[in-house]
Amino acid sequence: MTRQLASSLDDLVAHSVNGLQTAHPGLVSVYTDPPFVVRANRVEAKTAIVSGGGSGHEPLHTGFVGAGMLDAAVPGPVFTSPSAAQILAAIRAVDAGSGVLLIVKNYTGDVLNFSIAAELAADYGIATETVLVDDDLATDIEATDVESGSDEHRPGRRGTAAVVVVEKICGAAAEAGQPLTEVAALGRRVAAGSRSMAAAFTACTHPGGEAPAFAIADDEVEFGVGIHGERGTGTRPRGTAAELIAALTEPIIAALNLGHGDQVIAIVNGLGGTPALELALAQHELTRCLAARDVSVARALTGSFVTSLDMRGVSITLVRAEAQLLRLWDAPVRTPALTW
Amino acid sequence: MTRQLASSLDDLVAHSVNGLQTAHPGLVSVYTDPPFVVRANRVEAKTAIVSGGGSGHEPLHTGFVGAGMLDAAVPGPVFTSPSAAQILAAIRAVDAGSGVLLIVKNYTGDVLNFSIAAELAADYGIATETVLVDDDLATDIEATDVESGSDEHRPGRRGTAAVVVVEKICGAAAEAGQPLTEVAALGRRVAAGSRSMAAAFTACTHPGGEAPAFAIADDEVEFGVGIHGERGTGTRPRGTAAELIAALTEPIIAALNLGHGDQVIAIVNGLGGTPALELALAQHELTRCLAARDVSVARALTGSFVTSLDMRGVSITLVRAEAQLLRLWDAPVRTPALTW
Repeated sequence: MTRQLASSLDDLVAHSVNGLQTAHPGLVSVYTDPPFVVRANRVEAKTAIVSGGGSGHEPLHTGFVGAGMLDAAVPGPVFTSPSAAQILAAIRAVDAGSGVLLIVKNYTGDVLNFSIAAELAADYGIATETVLVDDDLATDIEATDVESGSDEHRPGRRGTAAVVVVEKICGAAAEAGQPLTEVAALGRRVAAGSRSMAAAFTACTHPGGEAPAFAIADDEVEFGVGIHGERGTGTRPRGTAAELIAALTEPIIAALNLGHGDQVIAIVNGLGGTPALELALAQHELTRCLAARDVSVARALTGSFVTSLDMRGVSITLVRAEAQLLRLWDAPVRTPALTW
Repeated sequence: MTRQLASSLDDLVAHSVNGLQTAHPGLVSVYTDPPFVVRANRVEAKTAIVSGGGSGHEPLHTGFVGAGMLDAAVPGPVFTSPSAAQILAAIRAVDAGSGVLLIVKNYTGDVLNFSIAAELAADYGIATETVLVDDDLATDIEATDVESGSDEHRPGRRGTAAVVVVEKICGAAAEAGQPLTEVAALGRRVAAGSRSMAAAFTACTHPGGEAPAFAIADDEVEFGVGIHGERGTGTRPRGTAAELIAALTEPIIAALNLGHGDQVIAIVNGLGGTPALELALAQHELTRCLAARDVSVARALTGSFVTSLDMRGVSITLVRAEAQLLRLWDAPVRTPALTW
C-alpha cells in the first residue's frame, strides 16, 4: 500500500479531470469519450492550440487550458501517451478554421501519436503545425557522459518544464490573432532557447504501486532525473541548497551560452511532492547563481507545474528572453494553474 | 539528513521570502528588519489587513499579499509565532489612517503576540480589530472524544485552511471601501461558518531534522492532524479515496448543520507534499460526497494553500455560502498564490 490518496489507477484520470472542472467551471469544459479538456469560452477564427501527454504531470497540460494559453489538452493514462484518435477528437473540437498548433513534448509515444493525429486531421481539411519541446539537458548526448554508439536513432532530449513557456507564449500570440505558421515559428524559437535540469530526493510511486520507482540514499540526490520514474544520470551528495541549485543551473548556462547582459525567464519547478517553502528557497538560490554570472532574471516563475506524481525534487528551466517573448509572456492568461 | 532542499533553518525564512519577491516583484515588497511582506501598490485610506504566523505553511500568509487580499503578512520562524514587535512594524507600515484588521489563526503564540501588537498600535493611534480563525474540528472538544476535565482553559479549535477564505473575503470588502468594523464583522461571520478536517499519509520533517515528526503505518492514515507536526486524533485504515474524503467531510457537514439546498465554498487543501493529481481526485470525491447529502458546491478551490512543510495529506474545508459572501469571493484578487 502506498502513501497516496489514489489507491488504484481505476478512473483516476477521469475523476481528477472532473475535479478540475468542479474547481474551474468558468475556465474549462470536459469531454469524456474520448477524454480531453477544452477552454470554456471559444474564440472564433483564432489559431487553436492543443497539447497533451501522459497523466501524472499535473497541472500539465489540463491546468493550462484557458484564455491566453491552450484551447485543448489531451490527457493519456498515467505516464502513457494519449491515443491518436483522442488527440484527433480534440483537434476537431477546437479548430476554428485557422488551423491547430500541436505542442508536443519529446517522447516517442507522444511524437508518434500526435503525428498520426496531424495526418488524420489533414484528411478533415484541418491544417496543423507541430512544435517539439526538448529542453532536458540530462538527455542531451553531447552534454552528458554516455557511452554512445551511433546516434542516428537516439531519441534526443526529453521535453520537460520548458513546455509551460512554449504554451504560454504561443497562447498569447494566438490570442493576439497571429496565424498558425507564425505561432509555430515562435514556439520553435522558445523551445530552441530553453534548457532544463532536474534532481530528486525521492522517486515517484505509481498509484497503487508498492514502492517508489527507485531508491535514493539518504545523503544523496538523484541528478538529471526525468518525469516518468526513470533514474537520473547519476547521484551526487546532497550538499546545501545553494550547491544543488548551482549544480543544476551551471550546465544550463553553458548550454545556452548565457553571459554578461543576457536575460532569462527563470523557472523553479517542483516535481510533485516539494513544498512551496523549498521552491521559494530554490528561486532565491537560482537568482543568486545567475547574478554571479551576470545573467539577469527578466521574469521568474515558481511552482509545481510539470510534475512526476509525488516525486520529491526540483527542476530548473532557463529560457533566453528578448523583448517580443517577454511581451507575450506578460500578456494576460487565465487558466486553472496560471493566471495573471 | 532529510530529503529536503532546505538543509537547515539558517536564513530559510528570509531566503524564501526573497524568492517570493523575485517571482512577484509587481505584487509584493519585502521588509527585512524586522521581516514582513507588504503589497507593492498601496491604496490610500483603505482598511488595511495584516495576517501572519509561523513559517512552514507556505503559501500562507506571504503568498496572499496583494490587491484584494492582504496588505501585509508577517512570517515567524518555522512553526513559531512572529514577535509582537514584528507584527507592530507591519501594522504601522500599512495603516492608511482607516485602521487595521488583524486575521489570526487560533494558536496560543499568535493570539498573544497579535494581541500585544494591537495594544502597542493603539499607542500610535492606530485602530485595530481582530478576527480569530478557529475552523479545525479535530480540536473541537464537543466534536471529538477526549477525556476532558474543566474546559475553562482549553485553547479551542485550531485555525487552518478557513483562514484563506477569511482573508479573501475580508480583502475584497476592504478593497471595496468597507470600514474596519464592517470588514471585521464579515470576517467573523465567515470564520463562524467554516469548519475543516485533515488527514495525513506521512508527517512533516523539520528542516535539518533527522526524521518525520511521527510515524504512520503503511496501511493507515493519521486522522485529525494539525499543521505543526502534531499527531491527529487517531488512525484509520487507508481505504479508498472516496472513503477517506467522506470520513473527513461528514463531521464538517454535521458541525455546520448542512443539508438540503445549502451551498458551500468547498476547499481541498494539500498539506505540502501532495501532488495536484491527487488533490483534483479529492475535489471530485468531495463534490460527490456533498451531492449525496444534497449540499451544492457554489465555489470550489483546489490546491496547497495552508501546508505543514512537506506533510503528505489533505484537508477539507467547507464554508457556508450566501450571496454577499460569494460576491466578495468572486471579486478580483491578485496575489502570488491566488489570482482571478
